[in-house]
Amino acid sequence: MTPLWHNWRVVCLAGGVGGAKMASGLAQQVDPANLTIIANTGDDFTHCGLPICPDLDTLLYTLANVGNPETGWGRAGESWQAMSAVRELGGPTWFNLGDLDLGLHLTRAHWLAQGRTLTEVTAELCGRLGVRPRLLPMSNQPCPTIVETAEGHFPFQEWFVGQRWQPAVQHLHLPDTARATPQVIAALEAADLVIIAPSNPFLSIDPILNAYPIRALLADVPEVVLAVSPLIGGQAVKGPAAKLMAELGHTATAAGVANYYDELLDGFVCAREDAAEFASHDLPILATDILIPDLPSRARLAGEILAFAAQLAEG
Amino acid sequence: MTPLWHNWRVVCLAGGVGGAKMASGLAQQVDPANLTIIANTGDDFTHCGLPICPDLDTLLYTLANVGNPETGWGRAGESWQAMSAVRELGGPTWFNLGDLDLGLHLTRAHWLAQGRTLTEVTAELCGRLGVRPRLLPMSNQPCPTIVETAEGHFPFQEWFVGQRWQPAVQHLHLPDTARATPQVIAALEAADLVIIAPSNPFLSIDPILNAYPIRALLADVPEVVLAVSPLIGGQAVKGPAAKLMAELGHTATAAGVANYYDELLDGFVCAREDAAEFASHDLPILATDILIPDLPSRARLAGEILAFAAQLAEG
Repeated sequence: MTPLWHNWRVVCLAGGVGGAKMASGLAQQVDPANLTIIANTGDDFTHCGLPICPDLDTLLYTLANVGNPETGWGRAGESWQAMSAVRELGGPTWFNLGDLDLGLHLTRAHWLAQGRTLTEVTAELCGRLGVRPRLLPMSNQPCPTIVETAEGHFPFQEWFVGQRWQPAVQHLHLPDTARATPQVIAALEAADLVIIAPSNPFLSIDPILNAYPIRALLADVPEVVLAVSPLIGGQAVKGPAAKLMAELGHTATAAGVANYYDELLDGFVCAREDAAEFASHDLPILATDILIPDLPSRARLAGEILAFAAQLAEG
Repeated sequence: MTPLWHNWRVVCLAGGVGGAKMASGLAQQVDPANLTIIANTGDDFTHCGLPICPDLDTLLYTLANVGNPETGWGRAGESWQAMSAVRELGGPTWFNLGDLDLGLHLTRAHWLAQGRTLTEVTAELCGRLGVRPRLLPMSNQPCPTIVETAEGHFPFQEWFVGQRWQPAVQHLHLPDTARATPQVIAALEAADLVIIAPSNPFLSIDPILNAYPIRALLADVPEVVLAVSPLIGGQAVKGPAAKLMAELGHTATAAGVANYYDELLDGFVCAREDAAEFASHDLPILATDILIPDLPSRARLAGEILAFAAQLAEG
């Protein structure tokens, strides 16, 4: 029997490592012609002359199966000769640039300098690496997230990588002027299902929602919107999600994440052990195994989420 | 006996490979505190987001003894992982960027983006690589050489590397606005001896002379000015010097080079086999072995040139 979701147009809002895992699961279940991944570009920055797009690149490498499975970011089989010369010469070493990864940054810098948009460049890179779902940056303009801490304001990567996300966050500043691309708007307008990946709600998803008019489209368009918890048992699978929730005055639990997204959601996906948090909650819940380290577990979770969404759409 | 030139302040005007060979000879003979190398930056360009300074880098690597002795440019023990990724992704491959070399370009891009001048950045790189003579870019501003050919106008590297210097040159366009740095002007004003390296007169030396007021300083300041022929038996040791001389209407011989520099010179250094060309010439000549592939031969030639200059200064 063909499932209800078979011809659905599915959009996934994604940050880096958690977003890439979800995207790689969906890519195994959904016809690539019907799957769009919208990537956070709030982490992007220019470093040593090169435009770097950490979330786009993690998504690209993961979907192309050339990613480093140990780290979740960067490429498999990477070498570090360029960084060894940067170190020798006294250049900046706080942000690691692998040699293969540099090839991507050089190519993107070249194409952007020719006047191509980040959307066009990303499509070309996907084509070259055999990535068939559509991978879209949320915006073609720089939309830098600024992290305000007790130790001062940091550009995102200087806080995240340079400071190993340790300075406590008081506020996140997202640009007022961020605008989604026409491709992003069209994908959301046409979407039957939007899945918010198990990414950091503040650092990865809010910057996407902040790119006008994405938040409004999610609230208005009558598709099914689901989110997947980035927390299991109050702990982030990776990164500072739990730490940030506490610092920004939220409860660092799966239910805290669901409450944060609030009215955007038609349903929520959490770990089995966190299901009890939702006992008195109106929101439909899929409680399952959301730890998805490998391709089969990602495909399994994606399948369960699609079935859950179909059930919500039918009900 | 201490030679007359022992305390001389020596300046060398240098392009890439030929300039680096001469500079490496002088660095073995002259107290580094008294030796300044002024590098052509007319070849510089921005590629894939990175500012590239081919002549400065060849000089830097050669003087630091980390250069590739096979090619004369780039670093020994280089790897090419980044370029393999650029190729995989369909990026520009006409200009080769080694992984170690990229470390230098990244470091320079970072420091320039911090607002440091190319002179400051070059001094820092020299310090890091243990290069003790002073290496100065002719200018801190971009001074791009444009090559006019029958096939159109090319930025220098696109003609030199991209087209393998094949399209016949009709004219070289040097910027009207090129200005030497204060450090370059001070070095030339204080110089006892200026040596024009065996570099391409049109592509490497003219851009330096064109940076105001270098040509005037060389003509006016009463130091000894010598040039070393880049041609032996009418052939360039490397590169398009002979080809260009013919295309631009000069005789492609050592005497042709001397005539081109003309009144700037107090003496000229040529290959022994070319001495006869100067039989009816007023210019003092040092005819010797000017093929200098290794450190000892470079030291030998530098010593002979310094002795020749001392003889001219005494006479």
